[in-house]
Amino acid sequence: MNTYIIGEQAKYYEFGKPISSNAIVEMKVPAVFPLEEIVKIERRSEIQFSLKEDTRVYGLGENLGGINKRGGRYESYCRDEANHTEDKINLYGAHNFFVIEDKEKAIGYFVDFPGRIHFDIGFTNDDEFIITINGENFGLMKIEGSTPSEIITKFLKTIGKPYIPPKWGFGYFQSRWGYRDQKEIQEVVDTFQQHEIPMDGIYLDLDYMVDFKNFTVSRERFPDFEDWTKSLKEKGLYLIPIIDAGVKIEEGYNVYEEGVKGDHFAVNQEGEPYVAAVWPGKVHFPDFFQEKTRRWFGEYYRDLTKMGIEGFWNDMNEPAIFYDEKSLEEAVDMAIDCRGKNLNVHKFFHLKDTFSNLLNDEKYHQRFYHRMDGEKKTNEEVHNLYGNYMTQSAYEGLSRHLDHRFLLISRASSIGMHRYGGIWTGDNASWWSHLEENVKMMPLLNMAGFFYTGADTGGFGGQCSGELLTRWLQFSIFTPLLRNHSALDTRAQEPYAFDKRTLEETKHLIRLRYRLIPYLYSTYMKAVDKYEMMFKPLAFFYKESHYKEIEDQLLLGDELMIAPVVERGKTGRRVDLPEEMAKIEFADSGYTVEIVKEGPHYLAYQRDRLIIFLKKGHMLPLGDVAMNVKELKNEKLDLLVYMDENAEHLLYTDDGLSIDRNDQVKTIFSVIHREGDFLVDIKNPYKGLKVVNFSFLTNEGLVKKTHRINS
Amino acid sequence: MNTYIIGEQAKYYEFGKPISSNAIVEMKVPAVFPLEEIVKIERRSEIQFSLKEDTRVYGLGENLGGINKRGGRYESYCRDEANHTEDKINLYGAHNFFVIEDKEKAIGYFVDFPGRIHFDIGFTNDDEFIITINGENFGLMKIEGSTPSEIITKFLKTIGKPYIPPKWGFGYFQSRWGYRDQKEIQEVVDTFQQHEIPMDGIYLDLDYMVDFKNFTVSRERFPDFEDWTKSLKEKGLYLIPIIDAGVKIEEGYNVYEEGVKGDHFAVNQEGEPYVAAVWPGKVHFPDFFQEKTRRWFGEYYRDLTKMGIEGFWNDMNEPAIFYDEKSLEEAVDMAIDCRGKNLNVHKFFHLKDTFSNLLNDEKYHQRFYHRMDGEKKTNEEVHNLYGNYMTQSAYEGLSRHLDHRFLLISRASSIGMHRYGGIWTGDNASWWSHLEENVKMMPLLNMAGFFYTGADTGGFGGQCSGELLTRWLQFSIFTPLLRNHSALDTRAQEPYAFDKRTLEETKHLIRLRYRLIPYLYSTYMKAVDKYEMMFKPLAFFYKESHYKEIEDQLLLGDELMIAPVVERGKTGRRVDLPEEMAKIEFADSGYTVEIVKEGPHYLAYQRDRLIIFLKKGHMLPLGDVAMNVKELKNEKLDLLVYMDENAEHLLYTDDGLSIDRNDQVKTIFSVIHREGDFLVDIKNPYKGLKVVNFSFLTNEGLVKKTHRINS
Repeated sequence: MNTYIIGEQAKYYEFGKPISSNAIVEMKVPAVFPLEEIVKIERRSEIQFSLKEDTRVYGLGENLGGINKRGGRYESYCRDEANHTEDKINLYGAHNFFVIEDKEKAIGYFVDFPGRIHFDIGFTNDDEFIITINGENFGLMKIEGSTPSEIITKFLKTIGKPYIPPKWGFGYFQSRWGYRDQKEIQEVVDTFQQHEIPMDGIYLDLDYMVDFKNFTVSRERFPDFEDWTKSLKEKGLYLIPIIDAGVKIEEGYNVYEEGVKGDHFAVNQEGEPYVAAVWPGKVHFPDFFQEKTRRWFGEYYRDLTKMGIEGFWNDMNEPAIFYDEKSLEEAVDMAIDCRGKNLNVHKFFHLKDTFSNLLNDEKYHQRFYHRMDGEKKTNEEVHNLYGNYMTQSAYEGLSRHLDHRFLLISRASSIGMHRYGGIWTGDNASWWSHLEENVKMMPLLNMAGFFYTGADTGGFGGQCSGELLTRWLQFSIFTPLLRNHSALDTRAQEPYAFDKRTLEETKHLIRLRYRLIPYLYSTYMKAVDKYEMMFKPLAFFYKESHYKEIEDQLLLGDELMIAPVVERGKTGRRVDLPEEMAKIEFADSGYTVEIVKEGPHYLAYQRDRLIIFLKKGHMLPLGDVAMNVKELKNEKLDLLVYMDENAEHLLYTDDGLSIDRNDQVKTIFSVIHREGDFLVDIKNPYKGLKVVNFSFLTNEGLVKKTHRINS
Repeated sequence: MNTYIIGEQAKYYEFGKPISSNAIVEMKVPAVFPLEEIVKIERRSEIQFSLKEDTRVYGLGENLGGINKRGGRYESYCRDEANHTEDKINLYGAHNFFVIEDKEKAIGYFVDFPGRIHFDIGFTNDDEFIITINGENFGLMKIEGSTPSEIITKFLKTIGKPYIPPKWGFGYFQSRWGYRDQKEIQEVVDTFQQHEIPMDGIYLDLDYMVDFKNFTVSRERFPDFEDWTKSLKEKGLYLIPIIDAGVKIEEGYNVYEEGVKGDHFAVNQEGEPYVAAVWPGKVHFPDFFQEKTRRWFGEYYRDLTKMGIEGFWNDMNEPAIFYDEKSLEEAVDMAIDCRGKNLNVHKFFHLKDTFSNLLNDEKYHQRFYHRMDGEKKTNEEVHNLYGNYMTQSAYEGLSRHLDHRFLLISRASSIGMHRYGGIWTGDNASWWSHLEENVKMMPLLNMAGFFYTGADTGGFGGQCSGELLTRWLQFSIFTPLLRNHSALDTRAQEPYAFDKRTLEETKHLIRLRYRLIPYLYSTYMKAVDKYEMMFKPLAFFYKESHYKEIEDQLLLGDELMIAPVVERGKTGRRVDLPEEMAKIEFADSGYTVEIVKEGPHYLAYQRDRLIIFLKKGHMLPLGDVAMNVKELKNEKLDLLVYMDENAEHLLYTDDGLSIDRNDQVKTIFSVIHREGDFLVDIKNPYKGLKVVNFSFLTNEGLVKKTHRINS
């Protein structure tokens, strides 16, 4: 075992010869220190921790089961999991970072390993946390600190700054698997405009391609794609096409032919390109583990950027596999064998399950190989890096094709990929429990470096109701990635697809989202620059077990607490205030404020409202409503201030596009409450800011004051 | 349309010629009154209600989605649904009764129809409740009253008294699909005794039969079944075998041969016995719609009662169907057709889904027929009566074979069946959300007449943890049916199968269950006799929307509120007290009491405790711990009294076995608090009661007093 210090903050234990998981960017400096954890290595490796009565375990990023993972089992092994029931132990991301905290101390750990890792966190035995690593070669990073937040900041430094989207990436996006053609999408855009619902664009699902071939656009269904893309962009609207991991096997298709010629595809045991089936039927998978392949694949994105595209979503890159030739053949053989037989329960379920299990059978991962620095590795060994490297390929390609920021998200991910793109949380459903999981997952994703993220608002699979869409938006208007997306053959899910009530509610909320963009964008950039989380559990800041256990309320930035309604049929919810806060309730007609005491409450939260809680001594800036980010001017800013003796707010702004962010302005708003008056100071007002409307809330009431910027 | 009054309480509208759903027992008396609801009839029928902002809809029995069904969609169509995700609109029961309540009034409705009914309760449009009935002939019963409770009592009268189990049915039962033989089961019994965990018996899943043939016992695996059954019974332990709806097709098998000979099986279009496959492979389904078949099938239960059996569970009686010959053949043909093809996404999912959808395809229900009063009906038309009539058949048979009460539960049910047996809530999973659904479903099952009911504690499918088993028991020790049951190939789920901590906790809880039996049994009998619910939503008793919306706390009887922890990893929970109550916290060493004020709280609820809330002016009787119900003597009773000016409690006891309950004793405990003293009076002490230990709780503290009965 070799030991290192990383960036003067973290200890790193190297067992065997780890394959880099592409996560850590800070230097490893050899140093000598002992191993305190119990680690057993024997083909598989095992790390053991004992858990005290009050130990909590936070982390593991994109996983179900809430903020404190104690009591559950999880796996880091990227999976195309379409059915997010609570027994699922892995989803699309492999985020091997967690913090263990008890009354005495907190320690962070990162398991640096690209294959399968299993975490049994007091599930099998209540007081044992066992990590099983599917191999002998791995790194273990250990970070100590006085609080989870401090540890997480140290960790975020070791893995490097998250991807930064363009500012228009903070707009609202509509999406649907099943928008057939340009005409139908244009109608969606027009209907949004007709109802004065802002949007920044449309995600294009697979429907835009020719026979599911990457980097093609169906001319039949999108007759003037370039002109259309450009005319939309002039109005501030972006199209974001999907790219899949699998490349269709088809003679004459350039990506396929060049891939074969350049040896760019993952191979089977015989060294031939491996054949699996996804959307188009049979495909090859680009071997993104080869640098030349990353460069090669990244170049194809230019086919679409040339047409005006500035954003992409990389999908199916766990990679998802519907079947391979061998397994399909075996299943058909079994079906033939069952013909005319009298199948009892065991035989029948075996037949049925054989067909069900074709989908994403993990056996396939042992049947194809990647080339990494001249070595052949099965996909299983380096599985969690596939989507990571695909997105790196896209990021590096797009950085060559465009001279400004672009939008890029991926479904599969592992830590390290956060530097190249965001993630959406995959194929959730129109379930209330998935709204609740969305809330609880946000801080965990931040812990893993994923800041540009969000769930499919309203749910991807299944049937949404107007009530669910409204309630989901009451949360997701705070998430950096805000997309309403739904699957083929589900109920239409656009804000106007439900009853009149839902249209009014969702319109109100999406318009509020645009007013929140100055705040959200600033909070994002501050979090990136300071290596801090944007969404934070109450547990990280309040010591009483009462508040440590509240997971359906989150802190956002330094200013806000949000407590969305995540249950059907309610007109209010239980809210626990860990300190006195100002409750701000937005209605269509304006807002009301009320100071709410520390402790448990049941508070009304009607569907046509938006409620936030502002901490004492803090401010919330609200900008303009505009029909998209391009039109946002924010010459006038409303500042809601919950006064302590004084209050301060730091607002980051920039042009929203430049990669270096050299034009960043840090505006400082400060207020002192003295002798009944509010003394205001504004340092470094951003360009264009003309008027600031202050609303000072104190225990005595609300005072309004307008401040004009002298230019 | 004909109109009737039922039992002077309910209005009944008869559309066309309804097929009786076997639910209503009170007389229908012709009467003339107008129809106020909007009803449209056109092959299907539609009933429309408009929903106000504050309208709540309670009911529909065994369904997911909580107590207030507003905002969701449901179906009454019994289904073998193994995956209880929140989008599922029907489970095993069809319970067509609900109450609509708004600030002004409450009305109850029962849709008297044995086929498919769909309920869209503000899902599609927020303000519309649409009931779609799959036919033109049905009855609609309407019950008015000032409160939901009053309406429910009137409804329960119209459908007749619920099934009454023997007192030993209130014990704890262990079960598992996969207990291989007598030896393994005896080991389970012995291990319970060794750990001093009480139990009243074991449910036998399919493993006990010969080739899944009903009414057979494998002599290979159960070599001396009769002697064993009897020796267990002497110790107070019961074996409860499963009976399935499907009868194996096998030459020489008496049930099959006699069934064919007597024309007892449901037939296909050609009039031949319909062939479907379930556990044993190919089966016929008894046509329970024929009175002669009910009598015929019910006689076979004698084969087992002769061996000492006194309880049964009727399973798979929706009926579940794995495949039929036609559909399996078609699926195999499709697989052959796919051989060697390049299947894209649509073709692949079509293939995969064809095999998945073999299981319980509703098409099968159109392919077989029942004979009802000389008329042939497709199963689809009368689907929801199948399990109902099967259980009636068993009940009537067992009433002939035994001269005292017996235990009988069923998986499929519709209202009316509650007179013949209880239900368990089917194949749930070891999910925390299923514990929460268990809580919320209990009062709705009571509304539908099902009192002897409970969920599989710990969850049937999936992997349970010790924590989940403990938390589940903290709720289910209050449910009349208390069974820990789990599926083949899941983690062992007996109380001792986890860590030491779980063993201690679960043992403590199961022992407490036995101390609660006097109270639970009495509460059950009072509920039956008074036509009142045993488990009640807060919403029925408190007017503020705050308490109307709390669904994870229940009232039990007139005395208690229970608020179980239904989330993982918690040491407490939010509890909302609709009035001041006494919190009683049981630890292994005894109990502590504390008065908790009205309003929202966050209360500690450790895993090794049991917490209940006692209403003011009420008492909770606690009996002895015993190793089973047979051994319960209760010569000494502890009475916890939360004093108002006075307090009273009515305790029903009987011998626990007699059908007429003629020996029932109604003991009245009353206390008056006067001048610092507690004046106690006990009327009609039950036989054997010698000592009552009173604990009087007031705002001033706890006073203990022992009262001896003069015999």
